[in-house]
Amino acid sequence: MSNQDCIFCKIVAGEIPCFKIYETDRLLSFLDIGPVHKGHALVIPKEHYRDIWDLPADLGSEIITATKIAGDAIVKATGADGLNLIMNNNEAAGQLVFHAHMHMIPRFREDGLRHWDQSSYESMDEAQDLALKIEKMIKR
Amino acid sequence: MSNQDCIFCKIVAGEIPCFKIYETDRLLSFLDIGPVHKGHALVIPKEHYRDIWDLPADLGSEIITATKIAGDAIVKATGADGLNLIMNNNEAAGQLVFHAHMHMIPRFREDGLRHWDQSSYESMDEAQDLALKIEKMIKR
Repeated sequence: MSNQDCIFCKIVAGEIPCFKIYETDRLLSFLDIGPVHKGHALVIPKEHYRDIWDLPADLGSEIITATKIAGDAIVKATGADGLNLIMNNNEAAGQLVFHAHMHMIPRFREDGLRHWDQSSYESMDEAQDLALKIEKMIKR
Repeated sequence: MSNQDCIFCKIVAGEIPCFKIYETDRLLSFLDIGPVHKGHALVIPKEHYRDIWDLPADLGSEIITATKIAGDAIVKATGADGLNLIMNNNEAAGQLVFHAHMHMIPRFREDGLRHWDQSSYESMDEAQDLALKIEKMIKR
């Protein structure tokens, strides 16, 4: 299934060009043309799924395997010292294209990229209460 | 296999407490006690693996499935509008505990968290050359 208004579906269909680095029957990986660092690439399912929740579990699994393979190649080709895997789900999380994708960002020692500040819980009770609240929401 | 100097192995062994939200035979999910936003949690394999490359593919797949389940519960319990999945591999990428883990960070509309700036390639040739260089490094 593809979505006619989706830029990633157009890339999969070959209607928009991309700089491909890896492909399987169900996945495509190509350079992000607005890279955080050069070599920054995406892995996407060829079919249109919106986000992590929409994505079938077996395809999620293939994406992880692809990040091992393509991510390793990115690190070697760029001489990177590390790699971030990032999937943004929903606009509030920074998702810009609503076709599920995993970012692979090569990282370099002291490259100046800051990670988000961490806060803390006011009390152990507050953390425990929230953990229980989350646990109750789990659908098994 | 566990690593006696690893804080996450100690959490799995019950030697250090955690605020558990989800568990399977091979995975544990618990609150990050230094959360970016409250409800920020981790999914880890119970066995000790260092990073994405060290992690067996089937376990990577289970982690993705767990992020769908636990991530959904986090979003519902916190009233979040989105979710980031982030895996930092190696110190240069911000990995602090060298036991593979996926962050699940609930996000809220206009929560002020900035994403890294994006750059661009000097030319299409530069991007094409890098894509080919990466493609050649792929181990199939």
